[in-house]
Amino acid sequence: MSTLSFSQNMKKDSATMKQISNHILTNYQCYQDLRYLCKHIGHRISGSQQAEQAVAWGKATLDKIGCDRVFLQEVMVPHWVRGEEEGYLIVKGKKTVIPIMSLGNAVGTGEKGITASILKINHIDELKRLTEKDVKGKIVFYNFRFDQTVVNTFEGYGPCVYYRWGAPSEASKLGAIGVMIRSVSTAYDNKPHTGSIAYNKDHPSIPAVAISNDAADELEKLMNTNKDVSMFMRTTCQMLSDVKSYNVVAEIKGTEKPEEIICFGGHLDSWDIGEGAHDDGAGVVQAIEVLRVFKELGIKPKRTIRAVLFMNEENGLRGAKRYAELAELNHEKHILAIESDAGGATPYGFSMEMDKALRDKVKTWSALFLPYNVHSFDKEGGGADIGPLKRKFGTPVMELLPDSQRYFDMHHSANDVFENVHRRELSLGAIAMSHMVYLVSMYGL
Amino acid sequence: MSTLSFSQNMKKDSATMKQISNHILTNYQCYQDLRYLCKHIGHRISGSQQAEQAVAWGKATLDKIGCDRVFLQEVMVPHWVRGEEEGYLIVKGKKTVIPIMSLGNAVGTGEKGITASILKINHIDELKRLTEKDVKGKIVFYNFRFDQTVVNTFEGYGPCVYYRWGAPSEASKLGAIGVMIRSVSTAYDNKPHTGSIAYNKDHPSIPAVAISNDAADELEKLMNTNKDVSMFMRTTCQMLSDVKSYNVVAEIKGTEKPEEIICFGGHLDSWDIGEGAHDDGAGVVQAIEVLRVFKELGIKPKRTIRAVLFMNEENGLRGAKRYAELAELNHEKHILAIESDAGGATPYGFSMEMDKALRDKVKTWSALFLPYNVHSFDKEGGGADIGPLKRKFGTPVMELLPDSQRYFDMHHSANDVFENVHRRELSLGAIAMSHMVYLVSMYGL
Repeated sequence: MSTLSFSQNMKKDSATMKQISNHILTNYQCYQDLRYLCKHIGHRISGSQQAEQAVAWGKATLDKIGCDRVFLQEVMVPHWVRGEEEGYLIVKGKKTVIPIMSLGNAVGTGEKGITASILKINHIDELKRLTEKDVKGKIVFYNFRFDQTVVNTFEGYGPCVYYRWGAPSEASKLGAIGVMIRSVSTAYDNKPHTGSIAYNKDHPSIPAVAISNDAADELEKLMNTNKDVSMFMRTTCQMLSDVKSYNVVAEIKGTEKPEEIICFGGHLDSWDIGEGAHDDGAGVVQAIEVLRVFKELGIKPKRTIRAVLFMNEENGLRGAKRYAELAELNHEKHILAIESDAGGATPYGFSMEMDKALRDKVKTWSALFLPYNVHSFDKEGGGADIGPLKRKFGTPVMELLPDSQRYFDMHHSANDVFENVHRRELSLGAIAMSHMVYLVSMYGL
Repeated sequence: MSTLSFSQNMKKDSATMKQISNHILTNYQCYQDLRYLCKHIGHRISGSQQAEQAVAWGKATLDKIGCDRVFLQEVMVPHWVRGEEEGYLIVKGKKTVIPIMSLGNAVGTGEKGITASILKINHIDELKRLTEKDVKGKIVFYNFRFDQTVVNTFEGYGPCVYYRWGAPSEASKLGAIGVMIRSVSTAYDNKPHTGSIAYNKDHPSIPAVAISNDAADELEKLMNTNKDVSMFMRTTCQMLSDVKSYNVVAEIKGTEKPEEIICFGGHLDSWDIGEGAHDDGAGVVQAIEVLRVFKELGIKPKRTIRAVLFMNEENGLRGAKRYAELAELNHEKHILAIESDAGGATPYGFSMEMDKALRDKVKTWSALFLPYNVHSFDKEGGGADIGPLKRKFGTPVMELLPDSQRYFDMHHSANDVFENVHRRELSLGAIAMSHMVYLVSMYGL
């Protein structure tokens, strides 16, 4: 008797979703939160003072909303510091400055720096055809380009990331003493982009830096006309001892099935350049906004909805792993985890990793998302911070899909600042997250 | 025997469309064209020297492509000039500067300017309740706000535009001597946005200016605490004699049905501030790119494809009207007209005005557009420059739909510059236009 028909529900849900949208587009508090995070705290690599400020800010911001519970999850995180960076090219004795940026978690060159011939490698297959005698004592320049023909730039990111993540150790294996990569970026500009390196412990950990696409183009030209190009690089980055840090968690209890948890969030840490505005200030403030809109509009979720501001996504994923461990210890039941870690641009859909039956259930809601231009529910994929939940429990996961055209111009670089996030675009991301959380909180998964 | 099955065609078309996409995303010549148009010519209001430079540039750029025909269509256009602008508020004898910007086609105040009390009107209904005694001799301040709750900002534009276009004459009817409007813009900033006014000739044409949203907020606050706020405004804008100008047209003849024309384009003129980058440099360079990609890839359209760079969309639509007149004189048969005049952001669909059967035919191609995130084919709407064709011949019309979140931050203001257009986003618009033109050129409509 009290059960509404599907179309009645649709109408009611559609009205609630419009109310959510109107509220966020009018108040856009997530945008003001992002301004604070970017301008008053700034970039915030794990272990830094700013990361700790971000934790305090996240908790205080969530406290103000009036959630049922706001708490911290302690976790030890790596503490990598960049130090100084200096590079120049040497051609026929003539030196030219080349701005370099250490890859995250990389070792430094030592105070004195290193000088060596540059060996240009356009594709890893070229390196694999070489032997130790070709590579030993050299600095390998990985000149692999971002594939600009992809429509979704994340499809271009994957192949490039190999050169930052795994390929440096392949060079070390053959005796290289340093690595320099073309930035993993769609931008044609002079900003280098950092990001994590993963050393293979079977080979020596060697210094590794990125140069901008412009600098890589120049270097390529230079090497086409000069047989011997050497370089000097000096980087004093280092890994310090682990530091105590936190995930910030806040929730509104479900009125009917409080034991069923829908978690959603982004990561609070960022790289140590720019302001971490798109990556992932956007995801953080959107997660906060979801709880805020529920409270401010008095929407009572039937299931527990929980925002998680993960620590240390960028260079360790320790917060994500800790979150999953604690979920296990506390016998928590996550019915869905949603990540927003693809920037603050206009959203067009959600990618998913879950059983077909669940995906089909989500797709029955697609008409409700269409007025917001959110139309894509067929892509595969979750996100880094919710990966441990997926792997440990098989939790269904989703990731918000914002338009990706501008993202890798900014990602991990000095370009990733508040000014490059648009109020309405960011808000539409928060709206899409709120909508999905609302529907799952009402109908389960 | 030579007829391919639908799925074979799909595969072939899909491959051609990918080839088009790869070519444009790799070469992005439309972006370089836009840079030239914005940085070397700049803004280009009808009748200005820059508009003539833009005509010459458009023709030269199209000539280089090697089309079958490039030609100009002569048309007389209005020549409105902005002149000087000066405004200040007066409260208790104290003067404060307020930056004002004349609406396009408006009359000026005369050299001496005008001083009058401000009458704030938040909604036209408020004015309609007033009489001549309330309004006479005053400057009406239309304080109508852009509705930020819309998802597609074009839906917010319409209601606001009334205050710029028609409402000034309503104030004049009641004896107002000037009008000042809150800018028609989503931006919260200090940039005024211009745009055309349409005087009702039954009432005196009075000076009309826009102020920025920030200035409007300040003025609103000021008027809430001060009963008498006056202002001085001096504007020397004026309409000069008509000037000879041109549409620029270029085409590739169809191999099988050359008499069937698919035209597509944007407008070459812009307002006289900013650089007319999104409005409508984007549409112009995308139309050029469509012909270029056909030529560079050697794609031979079965029907004639024609790019039109219309003159005078902003303050007269003379080029559009002339184009339709000439189409009639020359007995041309347009099977489709597509406009790109909604900015250079990532496209998500095409709006249409055509018979349902034709729309359904277009929708059979939707799967081919989906890899490019172009998914919306249900919206109604053509565009201003192709309106005369529609009205004269009932030509089916379409408009490219780019993401609209940022557009009205820039539209008709100093914000509309090349730097605010993104290479990949602009290119995706050119790709969507090329795809649609390709399919219609092959299968008709």
